[in-house]
Amino acid sequence: MSIQRPKGTQDFLPGTVEVWQFIEKTARDVCRRFHYQEIRTPIFEHTELFSRGVGETTDIVEKEMYTFLDKGNRSISLRPEGTAGVVRAYVENKLYGEPDVCKLYYTGPMFRYEQPQAGRFRQFHQFGVEAFGATDPSIDAEVIALGLTIYEELGLKGVRVEINSVGNAESRGAYREALLGFLEPKRHLLCRDCQSRMDRNPLRVLDCKVDQAHFVGVPELIDYLDEECLTHFEAVKSHLTAMGISFSINPRLVRGLDYYTLTAFEYKAEGIGAIDTIGGGGRYNGLVGQIGGQDQPGIGFGIGLERTALVLGAQGVDIPRENELAVYLIGMGDAAEAKTTAILYQLRRAGIACEKDYQNRKMKARMKSADRVQARFVAILGDEELAADEITVKRMETGDQERVPLAGLADWIKSH
Amino acid sequence: MSIQRPKGTQDFLPGTVEVWQFIEKTARDVCRRFHYQEIRTPIFEHTELFSRGVGETTDIVEKEMYTFLDKGNRSISLRPEGTAGVVRAYVENKLYGEPDVCKLYYTGPMFRYEQPQAGRFRQFHQFGVEAFGATDPSIDAEVIALGLTIYEELGLKGVRVEINSVGNAESRGAYREALLGFLEPKRHLLCRDCQSRMDRNPLRVLDCKVDQAHFVGVPELIDYLDEECLTHFEAVKSHLTAMGISFSINPRLVRGLDYYTLTAFEYKAEGIGAIDTIGGGGRYNGLVGQIGGQDQPGIGFGIGLERTALVLGAQGVDIPRENELAVYLIGMGDAAEAKTTAILYQLRRAGIACEKDYQNRKMKARMKSADRVQARFVAILGDEELAADEITVKRMETGDQERVPLAGLADWIKSH
Repeated sequence: MSIQRPKGTQDFLPGTVEVWQFIEKTARDVCRRFHYQEIRTPIFEHTELFSRGVGETTDIVEKEMYTFLDKGNRSISLRPEGTAGVVRAYVENKLYGEPDVCKLYYTGPMFRYEQPQAGRFRQFHQFGVEAFGATDPSIDAEVIALGLTIYEELGLKGVRVEINSVGNAESRGAYREALLGFLEPKRHLLCRDCQSRMDRNPLRVLDCKVDQAHFVGVPELIDYLDEECLTHFEAVKSHLTAMGISFSINPRLVRGLDYYTLTAFEYKAEGIGAIDTIGGGGRYNGLVGQIGGQDQPGIGFGIGLERTALVLGAQGVDIPRENELAVYLIGMGDAAEAKTTAILYQLRRAGIACEKDYQNRKMKARMKSADRVQARFVAILGDEELAADEITVKRMETGDQERVPLAGLADWIKSH
Repeated sequence: MSIQRPKGTQDFLPGTVEVWQFIEKTARDVCRRFHYQEIRTPIFEHTELFSRGVGETTDIVEKEMYTFLDKGNRSISLRPEGTAGVVRAYVENKLYGEPDVCKLYYTGPMFRYEQPQAGRFRQFHQFGVEAFGATDPSIDAEVIALGLTIYEELGLKGVRVEINSVGNAESRGAYREALLGFLEPKRHLLCRDCQSRMDRNPLRVLDCKVDQAHFVGVPELIDYLDEECLTHFEAVKSHLTAMGISFSINPRLVRGLDYYTLTAFEYKAEGIGAIDTIGGGGRYNGLVGQIGGQDQPGIGFGIGLERTALVLGAQGVDIPRENELAVYLIGMGDAAEAKTTAILYQLRRAGIACEKDYQNRKMKARMKSADRVQARFVAILGDEELAADEITVKRMETGDQERVPLAGLADWIKSH
């Protein structure tokens, strides 16, 4: 009996994997221009990192983590998101000691034990950035612009930016009181999750997918922000405007995680039905201290690659094909065939993508194969060519063919 | 208290991560030319896959896997190597139904619970290829050449190729008898691991790191190969010779895993002491059937990225720096400073890597920062420039400076 991949995981095969290569390559190049450098942290971390860094009362930590004991009896968890590990690495490697702002990006698999559905997997993939060491609102705007630039350069249309300010500890405390005052009389109308969230983390009630109808007239966080928070928020907006970036303010946007302060934002896209958030992030000025470092401000976002790929598909965006094959090489007869190994190797060393048959197929099957792999040229070596140290090169698109000296084949291909 | 990364794992930070980017980029480009396409399989698989695909009696499966029960009570293991998952995906997705040979590459983290030491980690990284569907010896030679090309294009010197044939089931059976006949009288001299391997998988005794002194005069597998195996081996050698690839024959090379048949090979490098194998692989004509697919031949290799990085370092290979910064932008005074956000964004959208200060630092600190990040140009916007819609651009290497119209800045940078 054959073994299947674990539920909620995916194989990315040739034909699909190009979408992922395109997304990552684009995101990396945008990061290069915005001067964010890559960081890679382990796939698993000590479980404590996530209870401290993501929040003990979150669904992620309570219900969704792949947690296990390793052979040394340590509690280990597969990372459910990217920020906690990057913050841990920032602290452990003392990157806060550098004089400049620390601007990082990461990409890779994350893991949550959830019920799989369209666009949601147990192993999913994120691209994210984190910038540590600056409170300047211009970096909030930069981070928001960076994410948007990635989507735009992927060719996505109609990506919208929504922003909000979730304030600081004080303003959130005042707002929590007001929110609970509003929710308490409706407690019996709300879902069980919301009732439980009211006791543990009332702000997250507003994230609820089912109870939105009961939230008409709910107090808004923005009315509880103090002067400093408001000034920061205004500055972020004016930087975005200066860059020519359109955005809307969504006063209910609080994000799922507990650690956000001040700026929170999301990217929304059309074309994939109810799931319209394709990425988001915010500022987290308390998180570095919470994870055990000296207090340092931070801001970042995460882009869901599965969702981004879904929207690329839904919008019919053309994915550049990088694996273009230049030459399909055919040897006719044993002597010529034997020679193809060396020719192929020389072409490849010269930078040219090429292929041959390995199944001892007939000429016709080889021509079909050359067609299937969309080779630009077929190069045919027969006894006659072999004797003359030449090779026949045929351009597949036009059918034009000519004889080329074998020694000059690589140069000829490069110049045609 | 701060949280540390799990034992045996690594953070790859800016300054080090470039080595990894360079290795992956080079390997991907070589694969493009050899016409291997990427496949990505999950980080974890059902444990059964590895007991079946790697071998129940191997150290990997017996002692080194990160195995745990998920919340659905399935036994799951973090992948300890790359081949089993790729074979599983090949079978599950019916890639054997395609008319051409299926040529794949993968890269990513693997996991083994071993004692960490120089170049050996619990989360380590491999780049590998697998080619399914061909028994033609030219593809054995191609795979060997592909790995060597990666090392050579990374700039490594003196990488040696060692090859052997481990035969088929029949020749191995005959050899096993002969080997046991040789080992049995020495059983009491051998280490406990070897004694245990003698009972379970005698060929792996020859891999032993401590007992080599007792193996003088041991029978050699090559003398037990049948005609078909010998013909295949000869053909592989002649293809390698035709390509101009030097190799040596190592009759003791059997590789650690049980599934190899016919061709086995390793890449060795100097400069990292006792650990001299930096990659290796072989043919595995029975593995696809063993994992549950219809019988299909296969061949592949895995390159250890940690070891490759170690050799790159030991040989002092220059790593290309991709993150070159073109412009460090400085606004002098509030009005100019406010304008920098938009200029920076325009340059970045035009493909130019650039940076500014986010910490409200003085001119001198900003110039130092521009120096530290090795910006090619510093662009200074003061009140005077602002009024004239111009900007002063200074080439850091020479100190030359000139005034450039703001609207033409991106073009100016690109052409200088």
